[in-house]
Amino acid sequence: MATETTAPQADLSIVAARAKAAGRRLAALSSGQKNDALTRMARALEARTGDILAENAKDVDQARAAEVGSALVDRLLLDESRIADMAKGVRDIAALPDPVGVIDTGWTLPNGLKVSKKRIPLGVIAVIYESRPNVTSDTAALALKSGNAIILRGSSMAARSNQIIVDVLLGALGDSEVPTDAVQLLGTDRADLERLIGMEGEIDVVIPRGGEGLKKFLGEHSRIPVIYAASGNCHVYVHEDADLEMAAGITMNAKTQRPGVCNAAETLLVHREVAAQFLPRIGRELSEAGVELRASDEAAKFMGDLEVTPASEEDFATEYLDLILAVGVVDSVEEATDHISRYGSGHSEAIVTSSLAAAGRFEAGIDSACVYINASTRFTDGGEFGMGAEVANSTQKLHARGPVGLAELTTYQYLVIGDGHLR
Amino acid sequence: MATETTAPQADLSIVAARAKAAGRRLAALSSGQKNDALTRMARALEARTGDILAENAKDVDQARAAEVGSALVDRLLLDESRIADMAKGVRDIAALPDPVGVIDTGWTLPNGLKVSKKRIPLGVIAVIYESRPNVTSDTAALALKSGNAIILRGSSMAARSNQIIVDVLLGALGDSEVPTDAVQLLGTDRADLERLIGMEGEIDVVIPRGGEGLKKFLGEHSRIPVIYAASGNCHVYVHEDADLEMAAGITMNAKTQRPGVCNAAETLLVHREVAAQFLPRIGRELSEAGVELRASDEAAKFMGDLEVTPASEEDFATEYLDLILAVGVVDSVEEATDHISRYGSGHSEAIVTSSLAAAGRFEAGIDSACVYINASTRFTDGGEFGMGAEVANSTQKLHARGPVGLAELTTYQYLVIGDGHLR
Repeated sequence: MATETTAPQADLSIVAARAKAAGRRLAALSSGQKNDALTRMARALEARTGDILAENAKDVDQARAAEVGSALVDRLLLDESRIADMAKGVRDIAALPDPVGVIDTGWTLPNGLKVSKKRIPLGVIAVIYESRPNVTSDTAALALKSGNAIILRGSSMAARSNQIIVDVLLGALGDSEVPTDAVQLLGTDRADLERLIGMEGEIDVVIPRGGEGLKKFLGEHSRIPVIYAASGNCHVYVHEDADLEMAAGITMNAKTQRPGVCNAAETLLVHREVAAQFLPRIGRELSEAGVELRASDEAAKFMGDLEVTPASEEDFATEYLDLILAVGVVDSVEEATDHISRYGSGHSEAIVTSSLAAAGRFEAGIDSACVYINASTRFTDGGEFGMGAEVANSTQKLHARGPVGLAELTTYQYLVIGDGHLR
Repeated sequence: MATETTAPQADLSIVAARAKAAGRRLAALSSGQKNDALTRMARALEARTGDILAENAKDVDQARAAEVGSALVDRLLLDESRIADMAKGVRDIAALPDPVGVIDTGWTLPNGLKVSKKRIPLGVIAVIYESRPNVTSDTAALALKSGNAIILRGSSMAARSNQIIVDVLLGALGDSEVPTDAVQLLGTDRADLERLIGMEGEIDVVIPRGGEGLKKFLGEHSRIPVIYAASGNCHVYVHEDADLEMAAGITMNAKTQRPGVCNAAETLLVHREVAAQFLPRIGRELSEAGVELRASDEAAKFMGDLEVTPASEEDFATEYLDLILAVGVVDSVEEATDHISRYGSGHSEAIVTSSLAAAGRFEAGIDSACVYINASTRFTDGGEFGMGAEVANSTQKLHARGPVGLAELTTYQYLVIGDGHLR
């Protein structure tokens, strides 16, 4: 028995107006009220696991009938343990500190005016995503906790799964203080998407969680501010004085621990002084792990009889998201940072070194979201950073960089208190 | 003798590439090196006042010959005192704290990774502005201090003035550490503007300092992130328990002290309980100051024989930037905040009240950039806030709200230090 609390066919202006009104009510809720609603939602996901699985099975059947690839089916598929994870995700968000009302800074002016800069919700957030149904509960929970109304736009392939999850979440609100317009799910037709991203002033930000095609489309057409999820062409640079044991560990971890994600390394740069010692060893280890090596001419010379592919200019600019690694040799920290500045995507870059001076020069030369000294690039993640769940990982420079968690879903407001102050 | 250090006709990609390289060098400069360059620039503006006035006179002559309005000519016109103000502006920026390298926050994770979140420059900033030549030195100084390269695009009317100012600024650098590509002035043809705002990845942000037409154009066409300078439909709300002396002072100051700017008030809302007492008095005072009153039917009833114009719905949504004030009557704080939420532009709103509870409800109901309790909206300004000069005043919610000063011209970067940490 699914409650019918959402209206996917409703006119978009009505959806946006409801979201705005809900957002204003959410902004005024206490942490306790929001956490209570989140706890009810988590419980409902668990209690109604059977209903969710039944709807999800229909999506999965249809996807299989349409002969989509098995990787896609796997992303779409829910089971009891995945639903338990979704519920845990919502509870984890309830347990995080409330970002709303935090005073970032404040001061008293010479004329006695008291200024404080405090965090308030953005208002209305739209999230456009692909086939994973867990994004529905994750992003709804993040939005609610940060006091924002959310408009969800999932893929048609997961339409039934997303609908039942939203119904379950909203059905759990009961007589809680959270308005049911706080979470709205859109239908999946293309015209709606186009209208959605033209609704400046009605929707405060749109966050795409999809491939490069969606991002490009938004870059060209969106009139709403966008927080772009990252593409990650991440680098590991091994300096001449690196502990080569550590360098090998970091390279293997950054490349192979989970190659399909944005914080995995795509290029290894090695200082010439240690290339003869390090490259044959790491090359063998990588090859044994199934990694294809695409090496510059110079790097290839150091790798003896290992099987390598010549790296083109394009290889150094590519985010493989696969077991492929571009390899180059450099003569200095500066040559490494110049390479990264030229080919990188501004995500995460690591240096392995024992020298404070080299670490400082690397840090100064990199303007990516995250710089690592002697650690794997794989740590760029809201959970790993201790910020809790993230809605995306940003490589843009404005507003949010790196993990986009609860704080990044807020803006700030100046509160100025006087006693009849005139200018 | 003007040095010819800029190349207005250069290909835009070359301009952007030079700016990017200059930005990377600027990012590594110490505060001392940047302040030294700023001090030289201020001195050069003073020393070459005659040259600047000579070029400015040509622009002014041409504008007069073209019979542009006297207000425009006044904005364009420089004299010794305005150039002295420009030099003082640059010195004031030198005296401000350096925003680059500030650690906003940091923590150590349970696994021992040390995370710090520090401020770094945005990179390359483009500023598009109208006829005031002082914007050239103001924004160049703000960009330099915040470690950013700047691309300036002024109006054709001020072309000679802008060129000589840039020449003087760059000529002052001598053998300082600041690269001369840090400040570049573009030519003024329209096609260049269109190409400029399509240079995603090459220019990090564009800041328009112009009218609504320019903003609309950027909203539709820019593929670079934009920081929008504000339009300000600001409100003063007089609560039933307000000190009416204070309320009158704040209303007069917010409306009349400088009506042509974004933080001037455009609407006065008065609680019904004090309307009979307050409206006739403030109405008279405003009329005597030459302010046209556009009153709702209800408000008009309280203003007796004062000359008022009936306010249309549109009046409440208008930023007059003139001696005109819309006036309404409300029954509660919530009616006031609903009105402001509906008609406001998210800039600055003031309540006059003696009640802590009413102030709290007003604050909770407003999501504008600045909320004032018992103070004039006219304080929304980087200088007044003690943040130093501002490049714009933002009403958008992402990245920067309110005054856009030095800190808002930076982004952040996570520095993560480990000891061979793997995930």
